[in-house]
Amino acid sequence: MEQEQARAWLATAVAEARAGLAEGGIPVGAALYGPDGTLLGRGRNRRVQDDDPSTHAETAAFRAAGRQRTYRGTTMVTTLSPCWYCSGLVRQFGISRVVIGEATTFHGGHDWLAAHGVEILLLQDPECVTLMSAFVRDNPDLWNEDIGD
Amino acid sequence: MEQEQARAWLATAVAEARAGLAEGGIPVGAALYGPDGTLLGRGRNRRVQDDDPSTHAETAAFRAAGRQRTYRGTTMVTTLSPCWYCSGLVRQFGISRVVIGEATTFHGGHDWLAAHGVEILLLQDPECVTLMSAFVRDNPDLWNEDIGD
Repeated sequence: MEQEQARAWLATAVAEARAGLAEGGIPVGAALYGPDGTLLGRGRNRRVQDDDPSTHAETAAFRAAGRQRTYRGTTMVTTLSPCWYCSGLVRQFGISRVVIGEATTFHGGHDWLAAHGVEILLLQDPECVTLMSAFVRDNPDLWNEDIGD
Repeated sequence: MEQEQARAWLATAVAEARAGLAEGGIPVGAALYGPDGTLLGRGRNRRVQDDDPSTHAETAAFRAAGRQRTYRGTTMVTTLSPCWYCSGLVRQFGISRVVIGEATTFHGGHDWLAAHGVEILLLQDPECVTLMSAFVRDNPDLWNEDIGD
């Protein structure tokens, strides 16, 4: 896919991450786009906001998209490399592509996804790196809780 | 762990699966137990009931358990071999053990979990096999939707 398109979609995920940060939450955001570029769902990590450890950004976007007969051709856009939980989601449901804001702060399962045929576009976006690295630096316990460390 | 203990815990997951079936849902149930045997959370697949594709039995039990500082020593009990999404959940959060009712109807990611140090106890429980195989036979479209096929 084109970088310009990927960056435009990433902006949706970044807006979710920033909304989460403003709520006192973990600033990871995501969005699921359909094959034709329709926004199917968007969401953010809600561990703090809802006291819900199961809602990562990617699972929130997936839930918001509702039931879909197929995920073929869809793209999951996320501000941060997907953890094993969210990588498993992508693999199980056959989401075709993952656009990743950054994998510097956290390197999840995207190599595994690539090895299993998922198209990975890693943008290494400076805004995403700054947002996440500052959060992890200031909230190490919360971050470690979120990734099970 | 002892088979007797595992079978007692599996009964909780089976009760969830049966409740799901009675609601018209996909009959997979799960429960998360603490290191000391405390029931931390239980739940069932809610794709049909809530129109929510993100709630598999294991993620429901995980959510019901609320925020935990660590999952070391916990056991996820599920009526069916965990799909990649739920296997990713187990790996990411460091859940120590998975007790599985059956892996005949569906073989998910439990070998991968075992290769990454998760203790797997596969019971091949006849009640779980009968429950799930009858459901898949009678509802192939719904089942395929749930596993992204």
